[in-house]
Amino acid sequence: MAAIKDLRTPKGTVDYSPVLCKTLEIMISKIKRIFVTHNAVEIATPAFELRHILMNKYGEDSKLIYNLEGQGGDICSLRYDLTVPFSRYLSTNRISHLRRFQIGSVFRRDNPSFATGRLREFTQADFDICGSNLPMVNDSEALKIIFEILTALEKDFVIRINDRRILAGILQKAGVPEAMHGTVCSSIDKLDKNSWADVLKELEAKGVDAAARDVLERLLSFKGTNSEIMDFLQGIEDKSPEFAGAIAEFQSLFTYLEVLKVEKVAFDLSLARGLDYYTGIIIEATVVGAPVGSVIGGGRYDNLCKSISSHTVPCVGFSVGVTRLLAITEPATIRHDVFVGSAYGLLVVERMQILRELWDVRVSAETFSGKRVNFKDQMEQCKKGNFRYGVF
Amino acid sequence: MAAIKDLRTPKGTVDYSPVLCKTLEIMISKIKRIFVTHNAVEIATPAFELRHILMNKYGEDSKLIYNLEGQGGDICSLRYDLTVPFSRYLSTNRISHLRRFQIGSVFRRDNPSFATGRLREFTQADFDICGSNLPMVNDSEALKIIFEILTALEKDFVIRINDRRILAGILQKAGVPEAMHGTVCSSIDKLDKNSWADVLKELEAKGVDAAARDVLERLLSFKGTNSEIMDFLQGIEDKSPEFAGAIAEFQSLFTYLEVLKVEKVAFDLSLARGLDYYTGIIIEATVVGAPVGSVIGGGRYDNLCKSISSHTVPCVGFSVGVTRLLAITEPATIRHDVFVGSAYGLLVVERMQILRELWDVRVSAETFSGKRVNFKDQMEQCKKGNFRYGVF
Repeated sequence: MAAIKDLRTPKGTVDYSPVLCKTLEIMISKIKRIFVTHNAVEIATPAFELRHILMNKYGEDSKLIYNLEGQGGDICSLRYDLTVPFSRYLSTNRISHLRRFQIGSVFRRDNPSFATGRLREFTQADFDICGSNLPMVNDSEALKIIFEILTALEKDFVIRINDRRILAGILQKAGVPEAMHGTVCSSIDKLDKNSWADVLKELEAKGVDAAARDVLERLLSFKGTNSEIMDFLQGIEDKSPEFAGAIAEFQSLFTYLEVLKVEKVAFDLSLARGLDYYTGIIIEATVVGAPVGSVIGGGRYDNLCKSISSHTVPCVGFSVGVTRLLAITEPATIRHDVFVGSAYGLLVVERMQILRELWDVRVSAETFSGKRVNFKDQMEQCKKGNFRYGVF
Repeated sequence: MAAIKDLRTPKGTVDYSPVLCKTLEIMISKIKRIFVTHNAVEIATPAFELRHILMNKYGEDSKLIYNLEGQGGDICSLRYDLTVPFSRYLSTNRISHLRRFQIGSVFRRDNPSFATGRLREFTQADFDICGSNLPMVNDSEALKIIFEILTALEKDFVIRINDRRILAGILQKAGVPEAMHGTVCSSIDKLDKNSWADVLKELEAKGVDAAARDVLERLLSFKGTNSEIMDFLQGIEDKSPEFAGAIAEFQSLFTYLEVLKVEKVAFDLSLARGLDYYTGIIIEATVVGAPVGSVIGGGRYDNLCKSISSHTVPCVGFSVGVTRLLAITEPATIRHDVFVGSAYGLLVVERMQILRELWDVRVSAETFSGKRVNFKDQMEQCKKGNFRYGVF
């Protein structure tokens, strides 16, 4: 058969080498242990869903969804995240209480960049709690888990939080009509990359008037400690009941975070997050100095199920960007226990006897399988394989 | 938004419940530990490959491949197994020695049947050794690993083996022209489901003459212990050197299996296996009395890499049909450590303090997050969640 030249993986995908797999395995086992400590159970949904389930969930990013070819039968697309399939799972099974995690590949026809861990197939580790909720109880536990994960992974990090209802209150205060909240939020979302000047120009182009822009800049650019921001918000006059209520809940949140000893949480009024479906707290964690953007993102999404079916259930949770974290993690070392060699003579049966005894007591071992005995080659193999012991 | 009615997963796919995920996790961790004991390292390839890599590898079953829609860019298909991507990986990286395992989903547009564990997305756990090989050394280790896995999973099993070169010798002996070996083998492959009468009728329709059919039936239907079959083969006169060589190698194989204490291996001359790419030993393990067909399949495939690129490397290995094994495995039990409740009063902060202390020492714990204190509900939650302890 003619040799085929193009042996690469598809654009934006990579092979994971043994070292990368090992590094990933260690990371996932740390994350999983924390999820389990918080009594989450695992579920798994298929790699693809009926296409209509994924429609109208991701705003403009819907164009990044991978479709399966119509080969007869169901019209399907590869999953874009694990959150929408989770909401579908809750709806399918009409579940109203669950703490679940799911770890798996998701697929986005994005512009790939290996240095920043942005791939077209990448791994997410999702944790979510669904069910009725005394305000901020589950939300503060989600932050606790994020804190535990990034601590366990030995990262220097910041967890930025905000609330969609607080944002809405500020937008309302500025006189932005409710129909424009979405598009104004997506401009504000760019503040982590762009300057206020750029964002204000974009808001002007979108038809936000000068007075509103002034109010937005004054309120959203306010920086300070968490309690300074709380004081600042409390000082805003004539708040709507929803706005005042959200601020009161944030006060409880900070109390809970103190009880749970969650640190490194920074209230950031300019945090907006792109996705449409958030309704309360929004969360974004970044690793200080890392070139990969946010490594964990999430928030409360009380209406996502309702948009899929008649089933309604409030949810809060987050996705760990495992592939991005992998891009900024020291590679693991692979070690083996025993190399079984021979200085002279093939001694195949004798080597096998030794191997069998080792394997049977769960000692990792291998031998050379070539047709000639070459001591130098065996030594080379020992060294390359990072063996603890050699038996000759 | 209008409620969407169709909340099922795509045809042939399923959601894995927490219990199923737990059962799967336990199974995979047992399999993985055995792979690692045999010094295999893990790799991972993408869920989809450039389409041309998968073409001409699976015979008639190629029509079961899932294609991705042409949305601009690479022409891709979902992987059909983990073996062809592994060969592509070896070729891409020009690797000539590796013992690797890979565990992941593969995708086939097959007729799904839940009872027999035949799904359109299912999990395989592959182990392969590539590299030069004193005949049957790596092959016997592959059988050892299969034996260890099915023993660890506490199944009552049989590992049937045969050799493509022995089959070819018999076909040659019967006077079947070499060009027809493939199609004759795929008829023989049906002997596990169909009777000899049916298969002979099919062979007649394919143009195999009566004399050849007689020889085939006489030789391939021979049953006996492994050593009886070896004696029978040795007694065949006028063997080609390749045929005689393969028989001699099988003699070594049985010696090695004895040294390695691999039991439950049954030489079966009628075993053929469907896939095109096998060149030596072929292997199929079944669980006695189970309705799921073979649970592990594999063999030697020395020319698969060559069919993808100019890179040549001999390989032997197998795939564990994890999903099929799951269908015949007792569901695992999920337990949690501590439920933190309250008999009267919400005591949110107090409950959080207890939770934090438990979590910080890795005890799995949760509380109720509702807005009202209902002791009966809490007791219900304790029972349903299978908690070891309650703290009130």
